[in-house]
Amino acid sequence: MTGTHINFRRTLVVAPHPDDEVLGAGGTIARLASEGEDVFVAIVTEGTPPRFDRADVTRTQAEAAEAHRVLGVKETFWLRLPAAQLGEVPHATVNGALLEVVRRVCPQTVLLPFVGDLHADHRLTFTSGLVACRPHQIEFPKLILAYETLSETNWNAPYVSPAFVPNFFVDITNHLETKMLAMEMFSSQLREPPHERSLPALRALATLRGATVMVQAAEAFVLVRHIA
Amino acid sequence: MTGTHINFRRTLVVAPHPDDEVLGAGGTIARLASEGEDVFVAIVTEGTPPRFDRADVTRTQAEAAEAHRVLGVKETFWLRLPAAQLGEVPHATVNGALLEVVRRVCPQTVLLPFVGDLHADHRLTFTSGLVACRPHQIEFPKLILAYETLSETNWNAPYVSPAFVPNFFVDITNHLETKMLAMEMFSSQLREPPHERSLPALRALATLRGATVMVQAAEAFVLVRHIA
Amino acid sequence: MTGTHINFRRTLVVAPHPDDEVLGAGGTIARLASEGEDVFVAIVTEGTPPRFDRADVTRTQAEAAEAHRVLGVKETFWLRLPAAQLGEVPHATVNGALLEVVRRVCPQTVLLPFVGDLHADHRLTFTSGLVACRPHQIEFPKLILAYETLSETNWNAPYVSPAFVPNFFVDITNHLETKMLAMEMFSSQLREPPHERSLPALRALATLRGATVMVQAAEAFVLVRHIA
Amino acid sequence: MTGTHINFRRTLVVAPHPDDEVLGAGGTIARLASEGEDVFVAIVTEGTPPRFDRADVTRTQAEAAEAHRVLGVKETFWLRLPAAQLGEVPHATVNGALLEVVRRVCPQTVLLPFVGDLHADHRLTFTSGLVACRPHQIEFPKLILAYETLSETNWNAPYVSPAFVPNFFVDITNHLETKMLAMEMFSSQLREPPHERSLPALRALATLRGATVMVQAAEAFVLVRHIA
Amino acid sequence: MTGTHINFRRTLVVAPHPDDEVLGAGGTIARLASEGEDVFVAIVTEGTPPRFDRADVTRTQAEAAEAHRVLGVKETFWLRLPAAQLGEVPHATVNGALLEVVRRVCPQTVLLPFVGDLHADHRLTFTSGLVACRPHQIEFPKLILAYETLSETNWNAPYVSPAFVPNFFVDITNHLETKMLAMEMFSSQLREPPHERSLPALRALATLRGATVMVQAAEAFVLVRHIA
Amino acid sequence: MTGTHINFRRTLVVAPHPDDEVLGAGGTIARLASEGEDVFVAIVTEGTPPRFDRADVTRTQAEAAEAHRVLGVKETFWLRLPAAQLGEVPHATVNGALLEVVRRVCPQTVLLPFVGDLHADHRLTFTSGLVACRPHQIEFPKLILAYETLSETNWNAPYVSPAFVPNFFVDITNHLETKMLAMEMFSSQLREPPHERSLPALRALATLRGATVMVQAAEAFVLVRHIA
Repeated sequence: MTGTHINFRRTLVVAPHPDDEVLGAGGTIARLASEGEDVFVAIVTEGTPPRFDRADVTRTQAEAAEAHRVLGVKETFWLRLPAAQLGEVPHATVNGALLEVVRRVCPQTVLLPFVGDLHADHRLTFTSGLVACRPHQIEFPKLILAYETLSETNWNAPYVSPAFVPNFFVDITNHLETKMLAMEMFSSQLREPPHERSLPALRALATLRGATVMVQAAEAFVLVRHIA
Repeated sequence: MTGTHINFRRTLVVAPHPDDEVLGAGGTIARLASEGEDVFVAIVTEGTPPRFDRADVTRTQAEAAEAHRVLGVKETFWLRLPAAQLGEVPHATVNGALLEVVRRVCPQTVLLPFVGDLHADHRLTFTSGLVACRPHQIEFPKLILAYETLSETNWNAPYVSPAFVPNFFVDITNHLETKMLAMEMFSSQLREPPHERSLPALRALATLRGATVMVQAAEAFVLVRHIA
Repeated sequence: MTGTHINFRRTLVVAPHPDDEVLGAGGTIARLASEGEDVFVAIVTEGTPPRFDRADVTRTQAEAAEAHRVLGVKETFWLRLPAAQLGEVPHATVNGALLEVVRRVCPQTVLLPFVGDLHADHRLTFTSGLVACRPHQIEFPKLILAYETLSETNWNAPYVSPAFVPNFFVDITNHLETKMLAMEMFSSQLREPPHERSLPALRALATLRGATVMVQAAEAFVLVRHIA
Repeated sequence: MTGTHINFRRTLVVAPHPDDEVLGAGGTIARLASEGEDVFVAIVTEGTPPRFDRADVTRTQAEAAEAHRVLGVKETFWLRLPAAQLGEVPHATVNGALLEVVRRVCPQTVLLPFVGDLHADHRLTFTSGLVACRPHQIEFPKLILAYETLSETNWNAPYVSPAFVPNFFVDITNHLETKMLAMEMFSSQLREPPHERSLPALRALATLRGATVMVQAAEAFVLVRHIA
Repeated sequence: MTGTHINFRRTLVVAPHPDDEVLGAGGTIARLASEGEDVFVAIVTEGTPPRFDRADVTRTQAEAAEAHRVLGVKETFWLRLPAAQLGEVPHATVNGALLEVVRRVCPQTVLLPFVGDLHADHRLTFTSGLVACRPHQIEFPKLILAYETLSETNWNAPYVSPAFVPNFFVDITNHLETKMLAMEMFSSQLREPPHERSLPALRALATLRGATVMVQAAEAFVLVRHIA
Repeated sequence: MTGTHINFRRTLVVAPHPDDEVLGAGGTIARLASEGEDVFVAIVTEGTPPRFDRADVTRTQAEAAEAHRVLGVKETFWLRLPAAQLGEVPHATVNGALLEVVRRVCPQTVLLPFVGDLHADHRLTFTSGLVACRPHQIEFPKLILAYETLSETNWNAPYVSPAFVPNFFVDITNHLETKMLAMEMFSSQLREPPHERSLPALRALATLRGATVMVQAAEAFVLVRHIA
């Protein structure tokens, strides 16, 4: 465990929008890559006009590519469902898009956004992700975790939305700076402090999650299902 | 993961009373032992006169010894706190007894009874076990799981007691018969069906927990904390 | 209570898809019918092309008819909303379809799928079912229960989806074999063990739910509302 | 159901202190008695000097006797454990005292105070009551409900204490005035409005609980376990 | 606090349908207005043909205008999204409509319907309201509360829907009659007792919520977020 | 609200052990004091030999006195119940000790440790504190909040212990350095990073809690009860 190789094997990180995967699991991705594991990222949505400017979308996707390169992501899948409109897409379509990625990657481990996040795209991605990981398929993931997303997870309603209370911690002490660097690639998404989506908030979160388990920096998750 | 060695390493199973460790984790113990891991059991309480007959206590302890031999337990610790009276023992004493075992065994993994069980001895063992595993010590367990105990876990009050909703499953397909055999050693504790503490109920539970994750038999746990 | 007639009177079982009513409440239906109560089943959805093959749909409906005959269902209502697409149907339409059945049957007892099930059709059926049972109508059901569905209820996310923790148990000792027989009618829906939707898993569930309340076999429910 | 005889049969109401049984279930007791059922009350504690004045204790017990006569209670058991000190009594003693009453009465239905109440005596009575109702005994209760106690249930901590969210309602329209009269017997326990333990608050509660299920007055409960 | 001015400042009350704002917060509105604060109401939906008769809609809106005059509401915003069809409107549209009101009013305090209400319009209004109050905007509300709505909040599923367990109470002793008068304006929405949406039920609720905190009448809320 | 005086008035902070009040509410105390409010601290326990060395106890109390001076605490009450043994003290004694302080201080606001903390002294202090604040007394607190304690709150069991999910935030931007200075006074209690009870962890927590509500630093609380 700590100090040893992490036992995730092939890993798929599902992000509703580009940058969620870095906010929630960037250090874990970097650690896995550094330990020789193949890590894949699926970005579920893409901004579409007129709500989103095409140039902005292109820029963010370029930032993501750069961030993923920094982290050591092996391959990024762009599912291109409409951002901020996932609720208007049939469930079966979202389920199907995620199922296809899961079948293609055959991951042992899947990381999902958290079902209690304020943004509907996050909640729907979680649920469809879980459908895509159902254990009645020939190959299915053996470890499913939900990550937290600064500027979404903490802005829902305490006690009446599902609460993110982490029970799974990944030591990212040796990978925090890589995570910070990857996040810096997302200059279009970063905000100035004291915004939650700022570098100091992200660093504070890693310090706090780490302190809970006596390491310098950690990422924290809620376990959905682990089959040993 | 499934089909491979399980990643628990040195493991300590804490049982409020003899047989809880078999009911909740017997298959997991057998699997770990068969994979070469050292598994330790700590039995927290012992029946004391006049509530309990000395001969009965001796008999149950002999049954436990036999069951542990069947499972491949490396060593059993008897903490000898008074059974059904754990609530009358100072918290600090229970904490201390468990802390001493944890320090002696230095386990990577600790299995505890569930905090929502109806029996107060189970609830207090869980809480003291968690104190003994606090992550500010030099060595502390990296994986803590709570197991279910037929005839305790299901008899508490739904929705207003903490609910056992398993998120961690151990495939015991190849070790179910060893678990059943170990439970048969506890002839003083077994009951006739349809009692929950009967062999058919125990087998049904393994089938059901297995089916949830597409294996023939499993034991199910609630994750308390995992540090990777 | 146990050993006596069950007090459900006219009963309506609402199933998102054919076979859910048998998985969750087949033994209860058989018991009620054997005690002379009228039991009605409403199947909410129907597979539609191109997602579902018409011949398969026809076959499953024929299986349902046979299973209902085995159980002693008095009448089956086919609401024919589109399967796996209930989220794309206006809420008011689903509410209305269920309200019409409730008004027609005037049940004293209604059994619904569970709100925490992984399949969106189950969750939406629960919510619309509850709307159809609101107590401000001239006649409204006095007992509402939610049943569990193997291969849906256990595959959602522990602790962050609503948990099925049963508090209401129906003794089906004398009706388990009828339930099993009814399920065998659904050869298109059954799977081989260790799949959750297999006969051994269904039998294990009945054994376990029974053991919790000291009977040979039981079905378990979560109480939504009981007016005595 | 409503308008018909209620299906509780022999019923035992367990009260930590005299008046809790009337606050929480007085109307239900009156209804059951009027329908010919035998209703028993067990009062768990008794005030002991020096904390409580002996004359006050005697007076309250006389009030209880009068209130029980008004309601039609068949027999009252005084367990005489020390009030406001139940936490200092061994669990096994409280369990044993309740077990003895359950064995003597052989009730089909047991009503307990709520596990989330602020007063420790209430919480401990609930837990020991549940132990005394475990389903592995030859005779055990088939219906267990928890009642609410004005001036205890609402004063605990929202969301972090177990919440009283009623799912079981008893129509007491024809018995509300009997309940109010019984409560008036407890002149030593009643308070002036706007105190929760005042007659107007008690009447408002009955109105509100009734309105939820479309009757003039009701008492509301949380279901712990029902075996049908 | 009690007996002094309430510290809400500019306040926006968001109601899915006309009358929800009075049922849940009418006394608070009256108190704020009487203390010189500006209170705004946003009515999210409007009945549309053919589901709703145009004359009925006009009548209800006239009733709302009268009720708001009674309470001292400064301005009412009609968002005119389709009633009972909010689930068919894109999330982004509902978010946008509420965001525009929040930006226009710049409230310090926002009152929302409760996320656990049975009516989907209530749940969606809550969620979109929370999006509109996200704390990353230049001006954002510092106090967000959820109110209860008789005939919606209590008709959802106990323990598996989010529970309304109030932790924030506003003393409306001096404003209860104004609230009752405002509700009387809604003659098209009022029902006869024992319906929950009747004047006696509303008065009983105020008495009960008041008794919990030792005042003659109160309105109760669940705190979503308070920034001091 | 933010940028204005905070509305707590006379405030009592209850700490199980010295330093909890600084870890959880030091910045809030400093802010209140700077705004001219009277803030009182009650330290519930004191280490007693042989478990605790007398010199250590004296030293910690001196540190507390210094820290309170830094924060501007008006008066500190030492209740001197035995540390780590609160579970062995009768409930009524703990209740009584806290009741006496509440009656003496007559606070408008009370801050308590969190009921879900791992340390039994914290949980018992919360419960007894709530008893001491019951609203049926002549004077009772109108605002009750629970604070978080690094090295206790995060070490309990996720989802099966009560979760600390903050809904009340106090801006301590201008008082963070005072809080840090006060904590530095507790050199006997501070630990080196990455321990949770270290200065960097405490600073990270303030940053993170602040970011959630768009300020540079905050302390976060769970609301127990607010009466406006």
